[in-house]
Amino acid sequence: MKAIIRRGQRMVCDEIVEPVPGPGQVLLRVRACGICGSDLHAFQHAPQLADLGRRVGAANVLEADRDLVFGHEICGEVLEYGPGIDQAPAVGSRVVALPRVTGPGGMETVGLSQRFVGGYAEKVLVDAANLIVVPDGLSDVLAAMTEPFAVGLHAVNKAEIGPDVTAVVIGCGPVGLAVIAALGVKGVGRTIASDPSPERRKAALAMGADEAVDPGQASPYAAPAGATVIFECVGAPGLIQQVVAGAPAGAHIVVVGVCVTDDSFLPYQALSKELRISFSAAYTLAEFEETLGHIASGRIDASRVVTSVIGRDAVPGAFTELTGRHAQVKVVIEPWRA
Amino acid sequence: MKAIIRRGQRMVCDEIVEPVPGPGQVLLRVRACGICGSDLHAFQHAPQLADLGRRVGAANVLEADRDLVFGHEICGEVLEYGPGIDQAPAVGSRVVALPRVTGPGGMETVGLSQRFVGGYAEKVLVDAANLIVVPDGLSDVLAAMTEPFAVGLHAVNKAEIGPDVTAVVIGCGPVGLAVIAALGVKGVGRTIASDPSPERRKAALAMGADEAVDPGQASPYAAPAGATVIFECVGAPGLIQQVVAGAPAGAHIVVVGVCVTDDSFLPYQALSKELRISFSAAYTLAEFEETLGHIASGRIDASRVVTSVIGRDAVPGAFTELTGRHAQVKVVIEPWRA
Repeated sequence: MKAIIRRGQRMVCDEIVEPVPGPGQVLLRVRACGICGSDLHAFQHAPQLADLGRRVGAANVLEADRDLVFGHEICGEVLEYGPGIDQAPAVGSRVVALPRVTGPGGMETVGLSQRFVGGYAEKVLVDAANLIVVPDGLSDVLAAMTEPFAVGLHAVNKAEIGPDVTAVVIGCGPVGLAVIAALGVKGVGRTIASDPSPERRKAALAMGADEAVDPGQASPYAAPAGATVIFECVGAPGLIQQVVAGAPAGAHIVVVGVCVTDDSFLPYQALSKELRISFSAAYTLAEFEETLGHIASGRIDASRVVTSVIGRDAVPGAFTELTGRHAQVKVVIEPWRA
Repeated sequence: MKAIIRRGQRMVCDEIVEPVPGPGQVLLRVRACGICGSDLHAFQHAPQLADLGRRVGAANVLEADRDLVFGHEICGEVLEYGPGIDQAPAVGSRVVALPRVTGPGGMETVGLSQRFVGGYAEKVLVDAANLIVVPDGLSDVLAAMTEPFAVGLHAVNKAEIGPDVTAVVIGCGPVGLAVIAALGVKGVGRTIASDPSPERRKAALAMGADEAVDPGQASPYAAPAGATVIFECVGAPGLIQQVVAGAPAGAHIVVVGVCVTDDSFLPYQALSKELRISFSAAYTLAEFEETLGHIASGRIDASRVVTSVIGRDAVPGAFTELTGRHAQVKVVIEPWRA
């Protein structure tokens, strides 16, 4: 089968061996797969990620000079179940799947594993227990947005959200937009988005933010009457301290941005304000299912983030574009077409 | 009146002007006042604290070369109320007080202010609204332990504590011991204390820890069945990352130790474990009152932490002892006697 592969410092299209589903696994034909910021980061910084994996004692550490097929934002079609499992949903069903697959070495993240390929390929293996059927009428491309929007819902579920809460969203890339969408679903009182890019501020307002601030011009940290929850959706070093310094006393900070280097902050300032910091990474199957439902009903308008849909051959060029300055939000690959 | 004063790099006993209670204030005769680790730190590092205050935009920044009278762990006797306030509790009552006093410049911390003296003096002003009467039969010295033990209760109240929770207490100085005591009151399942000092491990067990670990010999971070709450009670740089690295996935970290320098950690590791970090500083009047009740009833045995009771003249020597290697836990001053 065909796949787009990180090979050395390049993205290349090549033929690879088709995977065979083992116990507990299901083979999907990939219908659409989003490009995530973490794919771009791993493309550029695989050696650092390998170091990081070793440092935190990760079970499966990347090897920077070995082929890697990205892709964890997947909509697919059920092709074949592994031996001895309940064949539901039926072969032919259109599904989204948590990007997890369990092999002899334990559970791995699909799209960041070198034992299993990700969704930038014609076919992919995932755990059969983590499938959710996509409702008729919802496109493959929008269904593939379930994963990134579930990241936002999970982050929002880390905090108590209600009509008396002001949310401040720092960074309005795909993660920040997913958080803004989930805040709307959960009935937040007010959402203030912050991003230096005018395009991203516009996207934040379109996704439902009440206000979008250029942090170079004004502070996004209001001192509202009710509780404040601040979502750090950038992940660059120094951002956590920026938020600690800006946050009102008693604020809850939810860190969703993935900072992969050591980072410095001033604990005394966090202490004197009695801040709380929750780190949000994954999501549950229930959150995945809820997110898909919101996308299908239109309550979350996933079409607002999809700025480009491309075939296999355009992926290397898209990586070049996305790792520079660009106006894209989310690029989705259809790996079944050239 | 007499006071023990930080003057330059020395602690000296000297005569100062007796304060007069203003609106909302009450004058107490100090019967006992504990020496806190933060007093020792401010004694040694006042210039750095001044820098820190400026950096976080504090309302009242210390001036390192100006006289400062420490003392915020106070048991006193009501002498005189300011004008126009309800005179309760009655003059002559023995009380503990939140170490706060509100003047023209807003609320200040008693014992860290240069406009108001702290409890290392014969008399002190506090806000009249924050007094709690000490029950008969409880000594002045043990009543003065309300403040440090309230710090522990407040920290423990930041977390959900119950019989299925394992608490890990990093650092068994006065703060760690106060946390261990409050965990017992709140019915924690199991408390594992960690400190390199054998004396402090012994004190932790006496205060109710189920186990006391030398972190140089064994990891204090069990992987228990239920939830884990880790209390960081040291406040030295690098400690937060040590806890992040050691914590089991999903753990709640409560930071009570006061780290006053920039500190580095690895957000990726906190994120991949979905940790939560709550910073705990102050306490409420209700927590103060609850703590005093536990000390009075003996449920919290405050006598276990008091290793020395001294008069004014012994304070300079005590500061020399306490800023070196020592076996003291809590030294309490009786400023009414030489």
